[in-house]
Amino acid sequence: MTSRELSLDDIEALAVGAWILGTGGGGSPYLGLLNMRGLYAKGHRVELMPPEALQDDDWVAAVSNMGAPLVGQERLTDSRTIARAVALMEEHRGVAFRAIMALEIGGGNSIQPLMAAAHLGRPVVDADMMGRAYPEAQMTSVAVGDLRPYPLTTVDCRGLESIVEKVPSWKWMERVSRKICVEYGSIASTCKAPRTGREVKDWAIHGTTTKAIAIGRAVREAQSQHRDPVEAILSVEPGKVLFRGKVVDVDRRTTEGFLRGKAAIAGIDHDRGAKLVLDFQNEWIVAWRDGEPIATSPDLICVLDSVAGEAVGTETIRYGQRVTVIALRPPAVFTSAKGLLHVGPRAFGYDIEYRPVFA
Amino acid sequence: MTSRELSLDDIEALAVGAWILGTGGGGSPYLGLLNMRGLYAKGHRVELMPPEALQDDDWVAAVSNMGAPLVGQERLTDSRTIARAVALMEEHRGVAFRAIMALEIGGGNSIQPLMAAAHLGRPVVDADMMGRAYPEAQMTSVAVGDLRPYPLTTVDCRGLESIVEKVPSWKWMERVSRKICVEYGSIASTCKAPRTGREVKDWAIHGTTTKAIAIGRAVREAQSQHRDPVEAILSVEPGKVLFRGKVVDVDRRTTEGFLRGKAAIAGIDHDRGAKLVLDFQNEWIVAWRDGEPIATSPDLICVLDSVAGEAVGTETIRYGQRVTVIALRPPAVFTSAKGLLHVGPRAFGYDIEYRPVFA
Repeated sequence: MTSRELSLDDIEALAVGAWILGTGGGGSPYLGLLNMRGLYAKGHRVELMPPEALQDDDWVAAVSNMGAPLVGQERLTDSRTIARAVALMEEHRGVAFRAIMALEIGGGNSIQPLMAAAHLGRPVVDADMMGRAYPEAQMTSVAVGDLRPYPLTTVDCRGLESIVEKVPSWKWMERVSRKICVEYGSIASTCKAPRTGREVKDWAIHGTTTKAIAIGRAVREAQSQHRDPVEAILSVEPGKVLFRGKVVDVDRRTTEGFLRGKAAIAGIDHDRGAKLVLDFQNEWIVAWRDGEPIATSPDLICVLDSVAGEAVGTETIRYGQRVTVIALRPPAVFTSAKGLLHVGPRAFGYDIEYRPVFA
Repeated sequence: MTSRELSLDDIEALAVGAWILGTGGGGSPYLGLLNMRGLYAKGHRVELMPPEALQDDDWVAAVSNMGAPLVGQERLTDSRTIARAVALMEEHRGVAFRAIMALEIGGGNSIQPLMAAAHLGRPVVDADMMGRAYPEAQMTSVAVGDLRPYPLTTVDCRGLESIVEKVPSWKWMERVSRKICVEYGSIASTCKAPRTGREVKDWAIHGTTTKAIAIGRAVREAQSQHRDPVEAILSVEPGKVLFRGKVVDVDRRTTEGFLRGKAAIAGIDHDRGAKLVLDFQNEWIVAWRDGEPIATSPDLICVLDSVAGEAVGTETIRYGQRVTVIALRPPAVFTSAKGLLHVGPRAFGYDIEYRPVFA
C-alpha cells in the first residue's frame, strides 16, 4: 500500500460513510466537510498514508473534537482550532509529528485530522482507534492495549488551552479532560496522547478511512442511480438489518458533557407491531426490541434514513423520521474479554451480557 | 533588607499569624507546619528573601493549594506535591525559578512556598498576592494589575497533573482551573502564572510573611504570659474589635470546589442581645450585625478563639465556640475602584457598597 492524495470526492464520500460508522455520534461531519471544501478551494490537499508506511519511532498525533454532539451543531467547526491542538502538543512535547490520525473514524471526527493536516502540511494515517465513534477516552483500542493515556491538549476557539499532563489511568484521563471540556462549553478540540509509529501499527484499527470512503461512495452511487442505499451499504460492508420503522419518541438531554437519552421507533413492514428503543450516550449503545436487548456495543448500531441511506445522529433524530436500523461488525480488539471491559454493555452501566449480532 | 534563614520558631509563629490573616480560609496551616517540622528535623532550611533583592528578570513561582478547605482536613498535605507543581512548571516553561512566593499569606497557603522551597532549595520571597486569603484566581493584586493570568499547573497526590496553558482572562483561569480542581476531589496543589522579579516588586504585597510571623509571635507570647491575645494582635497590627460572642449556628456546604455558608454568633459582654452573621465562601466575606452589614471584603474579617487568640476557620467553626471577631486593614491595592471590582462585596454577589471599617 502506498500513500495517495485524497480527492474532494473522496472527502465527500468520507463524510457520508463516517457519519454511518459514527453509530449516532462523533458529531455530524457536515461542518467539517464545509471546512474541507473551503480548504481544497484554496489549494490545500491532504495525503492519506497507510499505517505500514510509518517508521517505528515516528510520532503520530491522534485528534478529535470532544464534547456533546448537540453543542457541535451550535458552535461551528473551525479547522484552525484542531490544528492549534496539534501545534500545542508539538510545542509542549518538543516533537514534530510525522502524521495525523483520527481518534475515531465515526462522525465529524473523521474529518478533524484532515483539517489539521491541511493547515499543518502532514499526511493523515488511514486508521483510527475506535473503528466507529465512542463517547469516552478509555473506549479505544490503545486503551484496551494499556498504552500510555497522556498527555492530551484541549483548545477552543476563544483562546482557551489546557494540557492534561499526567493521569494514573485512562478513566482519569476521561474524567479530567471531560471536566475541562464541559467548562469550555461542552466542546473542545483535542490532541490525544501522541503515539509512535510502532504503536499505530500494533494497536490502531487499520484502513478505516478507506472503509468509510467505500461506504459513503456506495451510498452516493445508490442515491444517484435510485437504488436502495441500505442494500448498497451491506454490499460493501458485512452487516444486518435489525429494524425498520418510524421514530415516535425522542428523550434527549445534554448532561456532564454528553448527549444522553432514548429514541423509540415503531416498526413498519416486517416489524409492524414491534417497537425498538435505542439508548444512547452520544452513540447508540443498546437496541431493545419490545424490551429485549437485540444489539449492544461493541456491535455497531447504525440508524439510517430509510430513503437516503444516510446516517441519523443522536442529536438530529426526530419524531416522524423513517429509519432503518442496521448492525455492522465491531473491530476484533473490542470483542476480547479485555475489550468488553472497556466498551461492552457493562461499561455503559447495563447489567447485560454482550451477545454478538454476528454469532 | 537582607535575606535571612527562617527558624522553626519563625515557622511556628507564621502558622499562627497566617491562620489569622486567612480570614477563615486558606486552609489550616497545621498540616503544613507538621511537614515543616519534619523537613527541619531532616536538616532542610528555608531562607526568606526580601522582594527588593530580586533581579527584574528573575522568575518567581507563585504557589498555593487550591480547593475547599474542608477537604484539606481529610486529604492530608504532603510537601512533595507542591514541590512537584513548581517542578512541572519549570519543565513546562523551560525556566528555572529564582525563588518561590505565596499566592496568599492567609492560612495553610503561607506554608506551601516553604515546603516547595525546602525540597527545591530556593528562597521564599517575603510577599504574597492577596495579603490574606481569597477564594478565586482573579482576587489577587496581580489580577488587579492585569498581569498575565497563565499558565498554571495543578498536581495531586495520585499523580494527576494538568496545565492550564492559556486563557483569555483571569475569570476564565478561575473557571477552568476550578473544574480541574473539583475533579481531583476539590483539592489540588498549584503553581500559578510565573512572575518576573519586576512584577513581584511592582505588584506583590510586600512583607506579608514577616507580618504574619509578627502577629503569630504576639499571640504565642501573650498565651505564654497569660495576657489577652486579641489585644496582643491589635498591638502589632492596626485593627478593631467588631463583636464578641458565642457561635450558635453553622450552615456549611462544600459546593463547586468551595466551602460556602453562614455562621451565626450571639453577642456577649458589650454585644449582649445582638447577633452577628458571617457569610463565607472559603473566607469570611460579609459580617451582618442584626441584619446590617458592618464589615465586608476587602477588609479582613478575622474570627478568633476569645481565649487562645488563634484563628477559627470556616471549616472548623462550630456550635458553642467563644469567639472574638476583629477587622484588620486591607492592602491598598484592593480598595481602589479596580481593586473593588475584583474583591469588593459585589464580586461575591452582594448588592451592597464597600464601607471601610477604617474610614
